[in-house]
Amino acid sequence: MKVDGKHFRSIWRERDGWSVGAIDQRRLPHEFIVAKLTSCGDAAVAIRDMLVRGAPLIGATAAYGMALAMREDASDAGMKRAYDTLIVTRPTAINLKWALDEMRAALAPIDPIERAEAAYARADEIVEQDVEINRGIAANGLPLIEAIVARKKPGETVNVLTHCNAGWLATVDWGTATAPIYLAHERGIKIHVWVDETRPRNQGASLTAWELGHHGVPHTVIPDNTGGHLMQHGMVDLAIVGTDRVAANGDVCNKIGTYLKALAAHDNGVPFYVALPSPTIDFAVNDGIRDIPIEQRSGAEVTDMTGRTADGRLETVRIVAEGSPVANYAFDVTPARLVTGLITERGVLKPDRTSLAAAFPERIATAAE
Amino acid sequence: MKVDGKHFRSIWRERDGWSVGAIDQRRLPHEFIVAKLTSCGDAAVAIRDMLVRGAPLIGATAAYGMALAMREDASDAGMKRAYDTLIVTRPTAINLKWALDEMRAALAPIDPIERAEAAYARADEIVEQDVEINRGIAANGLPLIEAIVARKKPGETVNVLTHCNAGWLATVDWGTATAPIYLAHERGIKIHVWVDETRPRNQGASLTAWELGHHGVPHTVIPDNTGGHLMQHGMVDLAIVGTDRVAANGDVCNKIGTYLKALAAHDNGVPFYVALPSPTIDFAVNDGIRDIPIEQRSGAEVTDMTGRTADGRLETVRIVAEGSPVANYAFDVTPARLVTGLITERGVLKPDRTSLAAAFPERIATAAE
Repeated sequence: MKVDGKHFRSIWRERDGWSVGAIDQRRLPHEFIVAKLTSCGDAAVAIRDMLVRGAPLIGATAAYGMALAMREDASDAGMKRAYDTLIVTRPTAINLKWALDEMRAALAPIDPIERAEAAYARADEIVEQDVEINRGIAANGLPLIEAIVARKKPGETVNVLTHCNAGWLATVDWGTATAPIYLAHERGIKIHVWVDETRPRNQGASLTAWELGHHGVPHTVIPDNTGGHLMQHGMVDLAIVGTDRVAANGDVCNKIGTYLKALAAHDNGVPFYVALPSPTIDFAVNDGIRDIPIEQRSGAEVTDMTGRTADGRLETVRIVAEGSPVANYAFDVTPARLVTGLITERGVLKPDRTSLAAAFPERIATAAE
Repeated sequence: MKVDGKHFRSIWRERDGWSVGAIDQRRLPHEFIVAKLTSCGDAAVAIRDMLVRGAPLIGATAAYGMALAMREDASDAGMKRAYDTLIVTRPTAINLKWALDEMRAALAPIDPIERAEAAYARADEIVEQDVEINRGIAANGLPLIEAIVARKKPGETVNVLTHCNAGWLATVDWGTATAPIYLAHERGIKIHVWVDETRPRNQGASLTAWELGHHGVPHTVIPDNTGGHLMQHGMVDLAIVGTDRVAANGDVCNKIGTYLKALAAHDNGVPFYVALPSPTIDFAVNDGIRDIPIEQRSGAEVTDMTGRTADGRLETVRIVAEGSPVANYAFDVTPARLVTGLITERGVLKPDRTSLAAAFPERIATAAE
């Protein structure tokens, strides 16, 4: 999408044909800096340190990481080493494993001499496929917003709540949760987004607010505590969030706090949608709440906060009482019963085993193998 | 309660007999500083700028503010001016109005010459009464914790979740939500508190963590988004929160985000209790969700964060994308249907109109006048 009028993606092949450019998301919203990845190690660090984040973008970065690795060592051992290096960078996102398996499947049968070129070609495909998938999510989600417009008086604004960043920064372009929002905005629908701050790491206040603002979409940042109150008072027409993994039963794993917003939406009759590219569905996980491992991250994400001082310096400050322990669960799982629908590139699906299986018969066959 | 072994209250009459000492809660947890209030204006500023906060402490501060005012001008006009100055300092807390009405009722019938002395005496009573009430809450809440102990294996820890600061810092001593916790800790029960960070203003991370830590109660600070996940996985035995106002129908107004935790508790069968001194019940409000006004506070509480740098400086940093609007609703209302019980100094009450009316017949008579 656009940054002050100029089109950007979150990751791209540089003009040199082999190095990879990516927006350093750790520096947003305070600085807009492009990082250059020139090795598999760079890609692994970029994922682990969250220079890039968001399930689809993690997948894209891992794919380019495999391509960069093939320039260094295209042997079977080199491929295995790259796979093993990249797979451990983040534990929750299913897209990471998906992208790496795709790359391995494409590279394993061919001659090592041809692997580097083939790896870039397959990585480019994965990237373009992500953009296409998100365009599909946008197209399938738009009618949900148009239906709200149809119920409102002419000129009234549609209010959408979102949590974390499932925006174009979390993908290659368009985003998942934001895709229908950007498309509605492009079509001239008056739309306003309540942006959950999304503690810890504040991806809402830092990233979603940044990308909506720079693209020109009206929005308001709210503390994560606020959504229930807004829904109670009719100030939210629709919630759309992203997801890091959907289980075969429709349970949705996403940034911690998503479950609380889904409860509030359910309690107030607000439709609660989850937007996702289909690789995010993990048919191997039968029960999301029981079986999806929840990443615990550094306590520093809770205790420390980085921002800009009034005179323009970047500073990191400790905000928690000294000596108090902290816990940092990165994700939670929203039970399928609280989800109105899953907006995918194949349509809006009911979050249950039967509907998901029917929509992706080829994936079921694979999972059962 | 104790600060590193020494007993403190949150507010007190100084040894000079007339000035008022109070812990400056804006400086916690980074600095422990006592402020000296020497005029009604000081008291008003202390409440408005949240040097003191928490419904009972606001009431106590307003009472001393009236006493300080009577030293300056004990005429009827002076009394009215002080009342009018103090009543507008915060819009939501019912205790503010309650304390001011108590003071006015005590002072109006007597000679202006005697008003200053009488005001200090009545303010002291209000303060001591708050401590007594909180001891009552502790005593009435303790059996709820003991019942959990009885269900557990010997030596297992009781996990309590709380939101915001309804601790001794929010009252004169003991706290409301924390009162049963401190008493259980004193009785040797193994208790651990999940402390919601409580954005914005972070009263959990700043104040609750500080007071529990300095008193020696085991606790862990968590982002506000985390409680649902913990409850889903059996890691919370009990939630206890405070409240700024309870409606006659049992609806509970408290710091924004309380409603979301109540929803999660309900969804997971975790008992959700609200601890309160009875003046917090506002029998004049029939329907909490519809009728309690929700204070909107400065956006700076959302955009800016103050903390200590690694080298010890206090800095305030902006954490939200530049140019993004923010909203800051300070409270929400939890419907009575999600509340297991109200822990008051008169016992644990069902949150419904009949039970509240039966427990406080004298208040109903007053409200009906």
